[in-house]
Amino acid sequence: MVIILRPDVTPDQRHAVEARLRDCGFQVVFSPNGTQVTMAAVGEGTMPGMEDMLRMPGVADVRRIPAPFKLASRIFREDSSVIRIGDVEIGGKSIVLMAGPCTIESEEQLVRTGAAVYAAGARIMRGGAFKPRTSPYSFQGLGEEGLKLMRRVADAQGLLVISEVMDKSQIALMDRYVDIFQVGARNMQNYPLLRELGSVERPVLVKRGLAATVDEWLMSAEYVMSGGNDRVMVCERGIRAYETYTRNTLDLNAVAVAKSLSHLPVIVDPSHAAGIRDKVPPLARAAIAAGADGLLVEVHYDPERAICDGPQSLFPEQFQELTGQIRMIAEAVGRTL
Amino acid sequence: MVIILRPDVTPDQRHAVEARLRDCGFQVVFSPNGTQVTMAAVGEGTMPGMEDMLRMPGVADVRRIPAPFKLASRIFREDSSVIRIGDVEIGGKSIVLMAGPCTIESEEQLVRTGAAVYAAGARIMRGGAFKPRTSPYSFQGLGEEGLKLMRRVADAQGLLVISEVMDKSQIALMDRYVDIFQVGARNMQNYPLLRELGSVERPVLVKRGLAATVDEWLMSAEYVMSGGNDRVMVCERGIRAYETYTRNTLDLNAVAVAKSLSHLPVIVDPSHAAGIRDKVPPLARAAIAAGADGLLVEVHYDPERAICDGPQSLFPEQFQELTGQIRMIAEAVGRTL
Amino acid sequence: MVIILRPDVTPDQRHAVEARLRDCGFQVVFSPNGTQVTMAAVGEGTMPGMEDMLRMPGVADVRRIPAPFKLASRIFREDSSVIRIGDVEIGGKSIVLMAGPCTIESEEQLVRTGAAVYAAGARIMRGGAFKPRTSPYSFQGLGEEGLKLMRRVADAQGLLVISEVMDKSQIALMDRYVDIFQVGARNMQNYPLLRELGSVERPVLVKRGLAATVDEWLMSAEYVMSGGNDRVMVCERGIRAYETYTRNTLDLNAVAVAKSLSHLPVIVDPSHAAGIRDKVPPLARAAIAAGADGLLVEVHYDPERAICDGPQSLFPEQFQELTGQIRMIAEAVGRTL
Amino acid sequence: MVIILRPDVTPDQRHAVEARLRDCGFQVVFSPNGTQVTMAAVGEGTMPGMEDMLRMPGVADVRRIPAPFKLASRIFREDSSVIRIGDVEIGGKSIVLMAGPCTIESEEQLVRTGAAVYAAGARIMRGGAFKPRTSPYSFQGLGEEGLKLMRRVADAQGLLVISEVMDKSQIALMDRYVDIFQVGARNMQNYPLLRELGSVERPVLVKRGLAATVDEWLMSAEYVMSGGNDRVMVCERGIRAYETYTRNTLDLNAVAVAKSLSHLPVIVDPSHAAGIRDKVPPLARAAIAAGADGLLVEVHYDPERAICDGPQSLFPEQFQELTGQIRMIAEAVGRTL
Repeated sequence: MVIILRPDVTPDQRHAVEARLRDCGFQVVFSPNGTQVTMAAVGEGTMPGMEDMLRMPGVADVRRIPAPFKLASRIFREDSSVIRIGDVEIGGKSIVLMAGPCTIESEEQLVRTGAAVYAAGARIMRGGAFKPRTSPYSFQGLGEEGLKLMRRVADAQGLLVISEVMDKSQIALMDRYVDIFQVGARNMQNYPLLRELGSVERPVLVKRGLAATVDEWLMSAEYVMSGGNDRVMVCERGIRAYETYTRNTLDLNAVAVAKSLSHLPVIVDPSHAAGIRDKVPPLARAAIAAGADGLLVEVHYDPERAICDGPQSLFPEQFQELTGQIRMIAEAVGRTL
Repeated sequence: MVIILRPDVTPDQRHAVEARLRDCGFQVVFSPNGTQVTMAAVGEGTMPGMEDMLRMPGVADVRRIPAPFKLASRIFREDSSVIRIGDVEIGGKSIVLMAGPCTIESEEQLVRTGAAVYAAGARIMRGGAFKPRTSPYSFQGLGEEGLKLMRRVADAQGLLVISEVMDKSQIALMDRYVDIFQVGARNMQNYPLLRELGSVERPVLVKRGLAATVDEWLMSAEYVMSGGNDRVMVCERGIRAYETYTRNTLDLNAVAVAKSLSHLPVIVDPSHAAGIRDKVPPLARAAIAAGADGLLVEVHYDPERAICDGPQSLFPEQFQELTGQIRMIAEAVGRTL
Repeated sequence: MVIILRPDVTPDQRHAVEARLRDCGFQVVFSPNGTQVTMAAVGEGTMPGMEDMLRMPGVADVRRIPAPFKLASRIFREDSSVIRIGDVEIGGKSIVLMAGPCTIESEEQLVRTGAAVYAAGARIMRGGAFKPRTSPYSFQGLGEEGLKLMRRVADAQGLLVISEVMDKSQIALMDRYVDIFQVGARNMQNYPLLRELGSVERPVLVKRGLAATVDEWLMSAEYVMSGGNDRVMVCERGIRAYETYTRNTLDLNAVAVAKSLSHLPVIVDPSHAAGIRDKVPPLARAAIAAGADGLLVEVHYDPERAICDGPQSLFPEQFQELTGQIRMIAEAVGRTL
Repeated sequence: MVIILRPDVTPDQRHAVEARLRDCGFQVVFSPNGTQVTMAAVGEGTMPGMEDMLRMPGVADVRRIPAPFKLASRIFREDSSVIRIGDVEIGGKSIVLMAGPCTIESEEQLVRTGAAVYAAGARIMRGGAFKPRTSPYSFQGLGEEGLKLMRRVADAQGLLVISEVMDKSQIALMDRYVDIFQVGARNMQNYPLLRELGSVERPVLVKRGLAATVDEWLMSAEYVMSGGNDRVMVCERGIRAYETYTRNTLDLNAVAVAKSLSHLPVIVDPSHAAGIRDKVPPLARAAIAAGADGLLVEVHYDPERAICDGPQSLFPEQFQELTGQIRMIAEAVGRTL
């Protein structure tokens, strides 16, 4: 249940409404929605009558949220969320490009790749320090050393940093180096991790699980938001289908659906969706045409020698060419790059 | 095996090569590829040595086609196929729009919808006279009466006509009224139908089955081509996945893969992929951004009163707005509308 | 809507009820259900009031059928259908085994395979004369010559014959040789074919499409039944999933669901579901344990030399061992073999 | 690479072989396989020549393991693993039944359900104390209080205890109360958790993720094993498909495939695969017929009042009837209950 307060609501009236919802067993979450204040009753309470709530002083409107997610719903917040980090806005008019290597390897790799993606228009650098590898015998990432390196290089180039967190025990450490926490597809339903990310300051990007429905995906965002962190964005990265020519199957239906159900920014990762370099640009262009707010792309200054995911990493020139096309497509859908 | 003949090959040399392949048990199919003549050995013969073939007089090059489809492969024909019908080109530089109602209902419906889609840039009108309905108790289409109507209206408005054929027994009848035969997703592996379409003059559009791989989809095109009809295009219309918010899931990976494996034009039907009107434009835009050669879209002058698929049919104004966006996106990928 | 008439209903009363339903725009189909007569109103009529119908003389009960399929529903017919062909019963207490080669090759093949499967307990012989092959260049079956051969061999051994029909133009020919028409997975939604099979005398087995829902599968059975042929059985043969170790994924959830929603016999084809010989017996046993009424299994006297599907065909000894296990499992679920 | 040592190998010879593999960059893991000692070289080393290794004194045989999992492979260990806990054997001749409520609710619930499942033949009690719920607002489990309760009740009834661990931070606590750690489907690729479970003494059951391939599933078992804990079993619980009549789709192909690729015990959870009570028994029977080593079933003494998963929990009488059928099916496949 969402309660929209009148612009002239008094503090006492507001407290009375809040108290009433808590008495029913709900948690109460606030959202400033333009000039109005909106209040969501979430959790497992006993729903009070709509009429009763409407009659309370200071209440402008009352609505049910039929979706299982509440804080992530457009009914709770009509306007699209914009997440600001420094002078970068995610979910605003401008398309956001996050690009960089799959895994952090070396200073040279980061410096050269970072310079290339910055020149092409990216403002956020990606790179993994803790890698979720299918095999326990594969390289598992450079850990803190890698994060330090990426922070230093990114700062020098004026880039922000996004990196994957795999377990809640890594949060405190990573918080010192990254600007955005990325939750990987395999951890989309790692609830202890999501809960803990609900209490950090930094934004969180939640990748969609390999076979997650849109509801489940947005519920994972809701886990973070229910802990108090409303700077959440979600990321589509391909679902598992039966085709073997590509690694996964990009699901742009889900992007269109998520954009209409939720106010959260929706990012697309075409690299994992394709798994093959030459299929990345078509999918990246398609994502922006379908309404995505940004891209998370693997780029490597020398993909043939990448430790991980080389075959799906773009060459810097390919990324440069792609961003030129993205600019024109962004315009077609009323955005900029 | 593909054999590329030298520009100066003599008729005798050509016949010798052809005879050799036939002796090995193969069928031989010719394709003029620019200034050269290309010959494919298809079927279940015993492959002769590559060296032996190369040594035959008049032979410029010999290549294996590892894919199961041969005539549909880019190895057989490097340049993209362009299908010409009157002054419309499918697969050329210009994006082709096919639009119209799900099912043919009445003259008013066709006239008003036809005028609207023509004004917005469509050059081909779609409309079903024989409808594959999941329930035997649902309306099954107007049949020949509907085809006559659509032909008349289309001619008056300068549109071409595409309509679905469900059984080989309908081919002779439909041939009198349509410009393009459409094979529906449910019939993608109706081999007697595909074979029979191999001997018609008119182009054939083969929709991808609900769970078909790209190989199976292109093999269905190959069925038609192996009968002698090389004017084939394929159409992606969404695969079956687990999400319930939309009817199907548009698979643009398949579009990118098909465009690189095959020289055939690839069309996208965003209407069946979405199943909901407001999700059609984002998917349509994405399809063109991903490299599709055209769109097959359901438009109805009054969708609320459509007999069939009303909820996924665009209003004429929506289609008009969409084609404006498509024009800009086409430009971003080096195409026109 | 299903109307159950009283045991003492008069012909006039029955005609009145029937006339009422036809006036509402429905087709009326009868089913003798034990001592009572049951009448289904199917099609796109305007539903009369339940109360009104209940008040008509001779009417014992009135029920809605919420499912899209009507004649195939257990609400229309509570008892499981039993299809009798000679002294074989499909859907009765006894499990039915249909076994034989993928494709008809030669007299020796049929005689030796037929003898083996008969000895192991099979009463119906399978074998394809018209083969739906993914490639137009693969062997397409022996056609009528093959059917003649199979009929002769089967008669000599006391076996019935099931074979696949691919197009409605083949029905008249096949009707002279087969006891059961098999509709393949690729043709599950070939509606002209299903409709035509609605007017034959012989039973029809409808295989489930590769990605068909249970509703769609039963609707295809309904297509046949709506034409007047109520001797229909359905066959699960594996759905398309993402795993590559096996050809398809057997879906026994669908068997359990179909058995509760519908009165039709449910057969399972473990051979296509597995695609590998040594995985066929576990899936075959599982099918019977889950409640299937019979099996359709590929057996070849010499699988290594089979023209088609050799790798998934059982050796005669394997089939013999399997039927021994099936006998014990049948007993565990109150059946016999 | 697997190296099988001769029965008369000397300690010095063994050390030499081990040292050689370590020099190549591998980790070395030992497995006593009957009277022989088997050694696996795992990790990212440089493979030495097969011939070279065979020539080393004390070496009986050398084999490559083509699968990505090594310790979980049947090539490393031919005989099926048997996990012993007290007098219960998992993976031996006898089928193992694990049964109990979805979530721990109260002493009465556990006592009554525990008594019922014990009487029906179960030897292991399931029940969740930490619940992975899709919604952050749903009941999240009783935590330690619940574990204490279940331990007490299970001890009184002679049952072992299995319960789900959601995060590595819960391991130490849970280790005091449970006999088997269960890793849920959502955490199948929570690698920090799997790694940590590699160093506990107790057995671990790894549920298959909703869209995991058999390779990925066995790789998750490998993660635990690579840490030194070889008492691992895997559990199939249904994959995500497109059907909506049931919650998931049980995949018995995967059971048959896992049993042939790996020596690990394979358990089946028919409750989550069905999601509806009356579909659980057919799937449970099918699992045993397909070769599963045991079942993990939800049973509740009063399912209508269960906090969680009531609709898929069996009534005690249903479970009793099911185990009677399982006993007969077990016999058909050479097992006992």
